[in-house]
Amino acid sequence: MENIHQILEVIEHSTKNYVLATIIHVEGTAYLKEGTMMLIQENGLQVGVLSPGCLESDLAIRAKQVFKNGKSLTITYDMSDKTDISWGQGAGCNGVIFILLELLDHRLKENMLHIKKSLDQDIPILHIKILTADLKLLNNLYYLFEGNTFFTPQSGVQKSESNLIYTHVFLPKPRLIIFGAGPDVKPLVSLAALSGFSITLCDWRGELCNYNHFPSANQLIVGFPKETIIKLNLTPQDYVVIMTHHFQRDQEILSTLIHQDLRYLGILGPRVRTEKLLNRTSIPLFLRSPIGLTIGAKGPQEIAISIVAELIQCLRTPLLQNEFELDK
Amino acid sequence: MENIHQILEVIEHSTKNYVLATIIHVEGTAYLKEGTMMLIQENGLQVGVLSPGCLESDLAIRAKQVFKNGKSLTITYDMSDKTDISWGQGAGCNGVIFILLELLDHRLKENMLHIKKSLDQDIPILHIKILTADLKLLNNLYYLFEGNTFFTPQSGVQKSESNLIYTHVFLPKPRLIIFGAGPDVKPLVSLAALSGFSITLCDWRGELCNYNHFPSANQLIVGFPKETIIKLNLTPQDYVVIMTHHFQRDQEILSTLIHQDLRYLGILGPRVRTEKLLNRTSIPLFLRSPIGLTIGAKGPQEIAISIVAELIQCLRTPLLQNEFELDK
Repeated sequence: MENIHQILEVIEHSTKNYVLATIIHVEGTAYLKEGTMMLIQENGLQVGVLSPGCLESDLAIRAKQVFKNGKSLTITYDMSDKTDISWGQGAGCNGVIFILLELLDHRLKENMLHIKKSLDQDIPILHIKILTADLKLLNNLYYLFEGNTFFTPQSGVQKSESNLIYTHVFLPKPRLIIFGAGPDVKPLVSLAALSGFSITLCDWRGELCNYNHFPSANQLIVGFPKETIIKLNLTPQDYVVIMTHHFQRDQEILSTLIHQDLRYLGILGPRVRTEKLLNRTSIPLFLRSPIGLTIGAKGPQEIAISIVAELIQCLRTPLLQNEFELDK
Repeated sequence: MENIHQILEVIEHSTKNYVLATIIHVEGTAYLKEGTMMLIQENGLQVGVLSPGCLESDLAIRAKQVFKNGKSLTITYDMSDKTDISWGQGAGCNGVIFILLELLDHRLKENMLHIKKSLDQDIPILHIKILTADLKLLNNLYYLFEGNTFFTPQSGVQKSESNLIYTHVFLPKPRLIIFGAGPDVKPLVSLAALSGFSITLCDWRGELCNYNHFPSANQLIVGFPKETIIKLNLTPQDYVVIMTHHFQRDQEILSTLIHQDLRYLGILGPRVRTEKLLNRTSIPLFLRSPIGLTIGAKGPQEIAISIVAELIQCLRTPLLQNEFELDK
C-alpha cells in the first residue's frame, strides 16, 4: 500500500499522539520521493517508511523535540557525504533529503481526516505548504483537485520570491474490480489490497462473496453480471479482472466490458478459452489474456503475484505520447 | 505457498480428523496438476484448493463416506462434458480429473509427519502409490529421494502390468536468503513466505534482525557478512537477495557471492551503484541488477512484488507460461 493510505487509517483509528514526517525535497537520488510520509509515536514506534533504515532512529530523537514544544521542524540529511557515518553509511543514496516534522495536533488531524474522506470518495486533494526560505513552515493549504485530471504536478518544492512552495497531490486508491469470488480469488484480494488497491468484488454466489472470505475487500456486490455491471459505474481509470471460472458468466461479462474504456482488463484462463469466449481467433491487444506477467505461475498464490505485478506495471507506466502532443 | 507445506503444518498442529484428497491423474487441461493435495474436515471445511470452486462441495459429500467407512476412494470428475452442469459449468477446463480420498488415520498421519520432517531438513521425498486397474489404493510407499536433484519425475499415474503406479516428489521449500533487515525488507519476507519460500535473514544489527520484526522468517543469523556467509552453507539451489543499503557491507557480501554458484542472486539499488560496488562497468548477466521484474515499482511493497515475481519466474523456469494457461 502507498504509505499514505495506511497512515490515514492509523490517524483515523488511533488515540495516540503522533508527529507527522514528510519528505518535502530531495537533491540527488533517494530511496523514497517527495511526498512520502511517516508517523512517529512518542515512544519512537513508527508507521510507514522514509528510508531503508538509515534515518529512522535519528528521526525518533528529533520527533521528541516536536512533541515537547509543538513546533514544526525541517531536518536536512546529507547522504551524499561519503565520510558521513551516521546517515548514508555508504548507502549509495547519494542525495540530500529534507524532512518536515509536524505535531499531529487537533487541527492537522482534522485536515488529514478531511483528506481521507475525500480520497474515500475518489476525489484527489492538492496540498500546498508555504515555507520560509530557511524551511520554516508557514501554512498548510488543501484543495479539492479539480484540474485537468490528465496532469498531476510533480511533488516537491519550488521557489517563489522569498518563499518555498511545497506541492503534493494525494491520489485516491485505484479501484480493482474482480468478477468471481472462488477460493483462488482470496490471495489476489489480499495482495492487491496490501498493494494499495481498493477492491470491489462481484459474484452471483452470496455464499462465496462475503466479508468472511474477503475481509480486506472494500465493496461486495452480489448479483448476476448484468445487474452488477450497472451498479459499478465503470470509468477509464478502473482495473478489472474476470475470473468466475464459469464459461457463460465470463462470456456475459466480457461481451459487455470489451466495449468499455478501462485502464486494465484481464481474464483468467488459457488464450484458446478466451478466443472461444469471444467467438473469434484474434484477441484485442488491450485485453490481457493470458492474464498476469509471464512468470510461470503455479497455483492461486503465484497467479495472484503475476496479476498484481501486472496491475502495478500498468499503474506505473506513463502513457506514451507523440512529441507535439506533450505539454512540457 | 504450495498447498503441501500449508497442509503439513495443519496436520502437525491440528487434532481434528481429516480426509486427504490428492489429484492423481488429469486428462486434458485442469486448473491444478497431479500431486496437488487438500484436507477436508468432517464439517466440510477445507484446507488448500483443488479446483477453482467447481468440485469442493461435492468433495465434501464424498469425504463423509470415507469418514464413515474408513476406506479410500477414487472419484472421477469429467469436466469436458459440455452438457455437464455440475462440474465444469462451462469452466473451460476441458479435462477429466481423478481424485483419491484417504482417511488421515494414525498411520497416514505418521507418514505425513515424516515427510514434513524430511522436507524441513531439506531432503526431498519420493512418494509412490500402487493402485489397481480400477483405481483402488493398495499401497503407499515413501523414499528419501537421493537421485539427481536436477531431475524430478513428473507427478502422475503410469500403467505397470495390471497395476497403476502413482508417483510424486515432495520438494522442500526453496530457501531465500536475504541480507539486510531494514523496514523495507518486511513486505518482502512476508510475501516470499506466503509464496512458499523458506526465509533466512542475515544482518549485523540485532535490534532489526529479530522475530518481532520478521515473524514469518524461518531462520535469523545476526552477524557481519563474513561470519554469516560461512554459517549459510550456500548451495546452487539457493536464492539470495542483498539489500542492506550499506555500501561497504553490500560490497563485502557481493564480492564473496559473485563467485558462488547460486540459483538466483539479486541486489537492490540502481545499476550504477552495483557497478561501483563491483568496481567495474560490466555487471555479470547472472546478477540481477536492478533487482526485480521491471514494473516501475514504487515503495517497499511494490518492490517486494517485483522481486517475488522474479523469484517465481526463476523457480518456474524453463516452463514459461502460467499453469492454467497451458494446454497439456
